[in-house]
Amino acid sequence: MSINYKLLTPGPLTTSSTVRDEMLVDHCTWDDDYKQITQQIRKDLLKIAQVGDDYTAVLMQGSGTFGVESVITSAVGSDERVLILTNGAYGERIVQIARTAGVPHNVLNWNYDEVPQADVVRDHLAANPDVTHVAMVHCETTSGILNELEPIAKVVKDAGLTFIVDAMSSFGGIPIAVGELGIDFIISSANKCIQGVPGFSFIIARRDALETCKGKARSLSLDLYDQWAGMDGDGKWRYTSPTHTVLAFAQAIRELEAEGGVSARYERYSENNEILISGLRELGIQTYVGDEHQSPIITTFFYPEGATFSFQDMYDYIKERGYAIYPGKVTEADTFRIGNIGEIYPDDMRKVVEIIGEYLNQVDTQKGQEQ
Amino acid sequence: MSINYKLLTPGPLTTSSTVRDEMLVDHCTWDDDYKQITQQIRKDLLKIAQVGDDYTAVLMQGSGTFGVESVITSAVGSDERVLILTNGAYGERIVQIARTAGVPHNVLNWNYDEVPQADVVRDHLAANPDVTHVAMVHCETTSGILNELEPIAKVVKDAGLTFIVDAMSSFGGIPIAVGELGIDFIISSANKCIQGVPGFSFIIARRDALETCKGKARSLSLDLYDQWAGMDGDGKWRYTSPTHTVLAFAQAIRELEAEGGVSARYERYSENNEILISGLRELGIQTYVGDEHQSPIITTFFYPEGATFSFQDMYDYIKERGYAIYPGKVTEADTFRIGNIGEIYPDDMRKVVEIIGEYLNQVDTQKGQEQ
Repeated sequence: MSINYKLLTPGPLTTSSTVRDEMLVDHCTWDDDYKQITQQIRKDLLKIAQVGDDYTAVLMQGSGTFGVESVITSAVGSDERVLILTNGAYGERIVQIARTAGVPHNVLNWNYDEVPQADVVRDHLAANPDVTHVAMVHCETTSGILNELEPIAKVVKDAGLTFIVDAMSSFGGIPIAVGELGIDFIISSANKCIQGVPGFSFIIARRDALETCKGKARSLSLDLYDQWAGMDGDGKWRYTSPTHTVLAFAQAIRELEAEGGVSARYERYSENNEILISGLRELGIQTYVGDEHQSPIITTFFYPEGATFSFQDMYDYIKERGYAIYPGKVTEADTFRIGNIGEIYPDDMRKVVEIIGEYLNQVDTQKGQEQ
Repeated sequence: MSINYKLLTPGPLTTSSTVRDEMLVDHCTWDDDYKQITQQIRKDLLKIAQVGDDYTAVLMQGSGTFGVESVITSAVGSDERVLILTNGAYGERIVQIARTAGVPHNVLNWNYDEVPQADVVRDHLAANPDVTHVAMVHCETTSGILNELEPIAKVVKDAGLTFIVDAMSSFGGIPIAVGELGIDFIISSANKCIQGVPGFSFIIARRDALETCKGKARSLSLDLYDQWAGMDGDGKWRYTSPTHTVLAFAQAIRELEAEGGVSARYERYSENNEILISGLRELGIQTYVGDEHQSPIITTFFYPEGATFSFQDMYDYIKERGYAIYPGKVTEADTFRIGNIGEIYPDDMRKVVEIIGEYLNQVDTQKGQEQ
């Protein structure tokens, strides 16, 4: 099937053809050559996270949500309690995970355009000494807001608690000082900023925190400790792995390194994002999140004032011209989203701004003719 | 990466290049064109299972085990009980799933070279009226034994219970009368007899049985009812789907149809299997499972009498000559396994028999020289 548009979505995203080409091979899951690829990926992930041997990496079949669930349901015991900070759908999904699996949890909510506040977390922890873990999302793809890890990490570590970060749409695209912040579990997936294809998630964990997960899991498939124990020896996954996706991911990591690592990728994404936002502002389209908390990953935009067109109509117009954008997900306003990660460059951003400008002109002209 | 051998494994297996080529495209997960592919796959699966509108199909991220777990932990409530029949590692895995998730269960075990007996099941059900579900594996990949569904189905249906079949390595390669047998849930995965690549499993379920799963799941990610409810409307997966794998699977289904459907594929696999077994018998290599229960999918072979070589040595010899075979998994004897599913044809079987013959000759010659 031929598809002639690029994805301006938060992942699955547009990958390089060299990443996709890796999928043309059927690999034997238990052969040493395949197991070595898994081991190399695990080593490379630690390097990307800038952590040492006190950390380890585990790959988990399924989407990012499966990875988050594996951590929440393997790390928090029935006599423990996780405080979940939410300011979007992905934080709320952690709450759903805990609720469904019967994991004891507390919740602190913020509005979708506000970041979690460290002092509120500190007060909550002081009042709830039974909390043992704190979980939060780094980049909330719902709105595109980038939550501040540092102040929360300080509060969590001051309290001596375990810190779980869902960095699904940021890891590999935004530098994160995993070790310095004392993050115990950080989760992302193959099809985000490392620019692989979807099929598995990964968890980078402090070994001592991971050791405490033994026997706690509520699910066989999502047992993080067992998955690690199985994989750590020789790189063999416990259950069938998505071999083609794994090969693509290994290539995606090589391409991340070739680009100059996370800092270089962060610069490209930031430049993409700035061109997009400034270009759309000139067209009268404003961002939902304030500049101080806008991530360089995905941006939520309000429709221009007085807009009467439908998302589907705008989507189709842009898609025909080479790009697939994303619908809005914040609940209180009519919005749309544009992602700028993946094999996407400043020229793509200039082009999509131009296409949206043409679209708005065309809509205005039609309106004029109808009057 | 170039790999010049075919996989004689029970899946992931060797696929056609046209199936793999489908993965060269990055698809937008929420675009109608992608959602329609999911819907078409779901329709095609019902056709392959020869069932009508009283059944529906659900796709689930992760390996086959994730699919089995989604059924066991979504279908059997905390006030219900599943009887699990085991005669191999995959039946035992269902027990592990139930144990880890706290699903009430009973177990009946058979030896790895024996099939579950209907009269034993009948007696057990008579003595245990609290059993509400019965779960078993169709083709036990552990040994290659093909369990008899019909007599067990009759007992389960006579008792008015729910019947769950793990048909991971048989669905699409062996005709199964899903509707006639009254199977309520049947599970397989993308990388088995339909000859796709690994990344998701699928469940074909009676709608009325699936309706009873609402609210029972122990896991958000593996909630079969929610996955269905999300997908059934318009083909949108609840969480990120392995888009490339899904595209490959759609093509694999088209190729299954082009081959002549399940019956034609069954014939090819059976022919493969017969050539393999008769050829190796001529070399003095016997099968672990008796002929009356040998599946046409994968076969466990004893080493020839007096053999002193290691599996790894034989594996390497065969791999260098174009085929990857599989280690044994039965516990009480030294064995190896050879699968004959995937893009594998009678000529491949003749060739691998020839290679093994050469290998044995070479080992004999070396032995002679050493004496």
